[in-house]
Amino acid sequence: MKVKEKLDALRKLMKENNIDVFYIPSSDPHQSEYVAERWKTRKWISGFTGSAGTALVTADDAGLWTDGRYDIQAENELKGSGMIPYITNIPNPVTVYDWLKIKFNSKKDIRIGFDGKVMSVTQVRDIENGLKQFKIYFSTEDLAGKIWKDRPAAPCSIISAHEKYAGRSLSEKIKMIREKMAADKADHFIESSLDSIAWILNIRGRDIPISPVSVSHLIVSKENISYFIDNKKVDKALTEYFSKNGVDLYDYEYINSFIGKKFTKKSVVVLDPARISYEIFSSIPGSAVKIEKTDPVQLMKSVKDAVEIRNMKKALIKDSVVLVRFQMWLEKNLGKRKITELDVSEYITRLRKEQNGYVADSFNTIAAYKENAAMMHYAPVKESQATIMQQGFLLVDTGGNYLEGTTDTTRTYAVGKLSREERKDYTLVLKGHINLVSTKFLKGTTGHALDVLARQPVWNGMYDYKCGTGHGIGSFLNVHEGPQNFSQRMSNVPLEPGMITTVEPGIYKKDKHGIRIENIYLTKKYKNTPSGEFYCHESLTLVPIDTKPIVRSLMNKSEIKWLNDYHSGAFKKLSPYLTQAEREWLKDKTVKI
Amino acid sequence: MKVKEKLDALRKLMKENNIDVFYIPSSDPHQSEYVAERWKTRKWISGFTGSAGTALVTADDAGLWTDGRYDIQAENELKGSGMIPYITNIPNPVTVYDWLKIKFNSKKDIRIGFDGKVMSVTQVRDIENGLKQFKIYFSTEDLAGKIWKDRPAAPCSIISAHEKYAGRSLSEKIKMIREKMAADKADHFIESSLDSIAWILNIRGRDIPISPVSVSHLIVSKENISYFIDNKKVDKALTEYFSKNGVDLYDYEYINSFIGKKFTKKSVVVLDPARISYEIFSSIPGSAVKIEKTDPVQLMKSVKDAVEIRNMKKALIKDSVVLVRFQMWLEKNLGKRKITELDVSEYITRLRKEQNGYVADSFNTIAAYKENAAMMHYAPVKESQATIMQQGFLLVDTGGNYLEGTTDTTRTYAVGKLSREERKDYTLVLKGHINLVSTKFLKGTTGHALDVLARQPVWNGMYDYKCGTGHGIGSFLNVHEGPQNFSQRMSNVPLEPGMITTVEPGIYKKDKHGIRIENIYLTKKYKNTPSGEFYCHESLTLVPIDTKPIVRSLMNKSEIKWLNDYHSGAFKKLSPYLTQAEREWLKDKTVKI
Repeated sequence: MKVKEKLDALRKLMKENNIDVFYIPSSDPHQSEYVAERWKTRKWISGFTGSAGTALVTADDAGLWTDGRYDIQAENELKGSGMIPYITNIPNPVTVYDWLKIKFNSKKDIRIGFDGKVMSVTQVRDIENGLKQFKIYFSTEDLAGKIWKDRPAAPCSIISAHEKYAGRSLSEKIKMIREKMAADKADHFIESSLDSIAWILNIRGRDIPISPVSVSHLIVSKENISYFIDNKKVDKALTEYFSKNGVDLYDYEYINSFIGKKFTKKSVVVLDPARISYEIFSSIPGSAVKIEKTDPVQLMKSVKDAVEIRNMKKALIKDSVVLVRFQMWLEKNLGKRKITELDVSEYITRLRKEQNGYVADSFNTIAAYKENAAMMHYAPVKESQATIMQQGFLLVDTGGNYLEGTTDTTRTYAVGKLSREERKDYTLVLKGHINLVSTKFLKGTTGHALDVLARQPVWNGMYDYKCGTGHGIGSFLNVHEGPQNFSQRMSNVPLEPGMITTVEPGIYKKDKHGIRIENIYLTKKYKNTPSGEFYCHESLTLVPIDTKPIVRSLMNKSEIKWLNDYHSGAFKKLSPYLTQAEREWLKDKTVKI
Repeated sequence: MKVKEKLDALRKLMKENNIDVFYIPSSDPHQSEYVAERWKTRKWISGFTGSAGTALVTADDAGLWTDGRYDIQAENELKGSGMIPYITNIPNPVTVYDWLKIKFNSKKDIRIGFDGKVMSVTQVRDIENGLKQFKIYFSTEDLAGKIWKDRPAAPCSIISAHEKYAGRSLSEKIKMIREKMAADKADHFIESSLDSIAWILNIRGRDIPISPVSVSHLIVSKENISYFIDNKKVDKALTEYFSKNGVDLYDYEYINSFIGKKFTKKSVVVLDPARISYEIFSSIPGSAVKIEKTDPVQLMKSVKDAVEIRNMKKALIKDSVVLVRFQMWLEKNLGKRKITELDVSEYITRLRKEQNGYVADSFNTIAAYKENAAMMHYAPVKESQATIMQQGFLLVDTGGNYLEGTTDTTRTYAVGKLSREERKDYTLVLKGHINLVSTKFLKGTTGHALDVLARQPVWNGMYDYKCGTGHGIGSFLNVHEGPQNFSQRMSNVPLEPGMITTVEPGIYKKDKHGIRIENIYLTKKYKNTPSGEFYCHESLTLVPIDTKPIVRSLMNKSEIKWLNDYHSGAFKKLSPYLTQAEREWLKDKTVKI
């Protein structure tokens, strides 16, 4: 079926069902960052393969909203489809609401269709707020799904126990949640976020390669724990584990009926409207008390315990060894044989496979040479990838999922001669990185309040990177987790000892170069004083930072001391895992500047 | 009357009016920072003279809530009064609500009395929220006022035109407000904040010495401007000015009747619930649409125009000359004659009086020697003040109100031998000051996001100052104005070119010393770049910063450069206003380090 045929088939169903506009987001039923093929309806119907986008279809028009990363791609892929691309993050964009307002200008009411399983409560409320001037009727039947004949099944991979690596037990975690529920006098807590569920139950899945979660829902009640998952995914051992821990198993699709049967008019229900589907929300009795709050499990999960921290350290030693070996290989072979961007990412994955406990990469490696690195989310493809020459920078952003933890490191390597501008920009990024992570800070401080420290040297160089400075990361879970981060966006989440967060300032100059230096940091207690308790950051990443591009005169004494201490610590901690030759190489790379 | 007698008289009235508890805040009808004597009811009834505090009186008990600054003072002043002091900002304090809950434990409803003129809408809502378990009845009659026989009249000083110094005209400012109102489709905007009113009308008052405002209310309607002020305060010239500008004059007390007559059930009214009284709010027809928002005039007022900026610069030249002369006098006389803390503040005021356009000090000078300076809000009193010796630090925080603008400067002078700790702390404070004000920052950045830059060196020294880093300041108005500031508290107000804000990090060590270095900065455009627009800060204060205490090895090159540039700029700009001897002295004080 071509896009035009798909749209015509959808329009036929829309007409039969009296729908004015059908709304197709990129989300799955769990608002996951990485979505399984089954829920890529927007990609299927539009032919647009970018990761972000929303399609809207009316009787005689169709539009696709995506961001500036995908402007050229959307135009190419939508050509001749009858679907018009709109870019969202430009000045004065045509929004979905502008488009609908103009289209339905003469009407008083609009009938909007969407799949109630994949739209979150918040997404639906956004539509209501955006179209306040209309009377809106919603229909939640998945009309697009009805015409998608060869639609992939939901992923169905076996789940595995993760207790051994998890620290706190399932029952301890349920106790933490029930304490939170008791404070709200709640009877039930609905959890649809796959990373939260995996963390609570101490299980991991493999439904999609780069995120070790399993498609499922969970309801924690005062007396019961109800887990909604395809029973083919649960083997005998895990069935026993769940039974032992008082977890009742139900079919994945049963959750709405369950809520209909078990929740009463007097139930008090805690839920996160940004994380549960409109369909689940609608199945709760209307008069039940709904207490809406940010998923409390996200915060619990972000504060790692001693076992998780020990394991994260192990994972980062493994991945640091991988990147030491990669850099040695690169130096040895560059100029002797052809090395492309994909060669880089493939070689790194190959090195990871030699490490015990490696499961998969935690995201697709970004190996970006020279000006390609100026595109923050660049991913090399075979046909257009660059060959690494002996000039400028190679940026490599890569991470692995090990049973012990998830990693994410970026290094920018000088692979040959650098311009003065490249050296200066590299030094500013390094200064920003050090400025943020070397500061002691008072208990209660947010990552938002500290963010400016990483930007300060970059701003003084009259440049800004248009993204956050760092994100939380999972314990063998998702590479991007919250609720803490380093960002210009306001946040009221203070950094707490046990949180693990990346720091990755950068400079990206179009058609020139991209520079990013990223490590993973553990927030730790530093010192109790009469002024209060101070915290600090310890790098769990142990990969050497390329010192060749540094303009030493731009660095101050304390920055140089931080870098030298970082390198001597990395050498000491990595040495036991290296061969004699590797140790000698690393000694040279970590020499004091 | 003794406190006991006053309380008994109040209780008699409470009984007659069926009131369970009478609530006496420290606020005036305008939620002013500096309150005229008429509204110091809490001070009158309790005998407690601290600036902050709330008194509660029941049939058989009475309490006074204040903060830790006043713990000893409250205990002394309340001794034998039958009123018990409670401190609010300690861990697990007994709050007003805890106290009432325990007291009225067996009751279902509470009848609360307060003066509806002086409690803001927000204050009343806080009570409602704090006592949700009760059914609450409010009575807004000022029973305490009824027994205060010798109560001072409301201040009644003549107001004066300020157009000459104001930049934007009254009609331009009304236009700005009406544009905001139009966006909300509002018919009326109620303004009770005295600094906002003075700014809008381009008038200044002298109802209380340190704040050039005048007690009054203002209502801007779509067609009319209604000013509620005692007509004795308006002379002929100003009556003409108001008439020419379409400002209708009404008696101060008439505002509630005016609202009752002119506002309809269909009126749309913009108001700031934190800034208008419960009584005024209650006079608005119940079915009128009330649009509650932070007083928009505060933001308009904070962004100074070219005329206001030029005038502020003039005011700061004058006050910088004053502080140069003061420091010369101090150096010349110290060790030769006795100089006390009050001598310092009196001499500075005397020097100010020599300057054209000086009206009054903008707050009571803090002259604090050695350990006295560790108390952030120290005010010397004759009986207990210190004599300045030739050892340690003298902290002087002082400001003047000139027709051209309001000033606020803090210097910490080394008056003799310093300890190593004193030198180090001084250097950390100076580094923090420079770190914040020398950074270029992207348009859209808040003072909250920048705040950490001032704390960074102080935090790395394992110390935190328990206050904000800086506050907005008025154009011959209040010394503390918003909405922008530098603070750890979250804020969504970005810094804008034209805003004028203090920067004043510090270190306060109990029984040892207090250090603060405060200048006033203008936010300015710096450079437009492909990454966006960058802003910077220019110091309007031109007072030399004592270089004697600096530990040079703790300063980095860019900090030293900032200080040297600051000093050479201050010398250049102040020289034309100094005598030859003063110029030579300043040359020496501003020599490069």
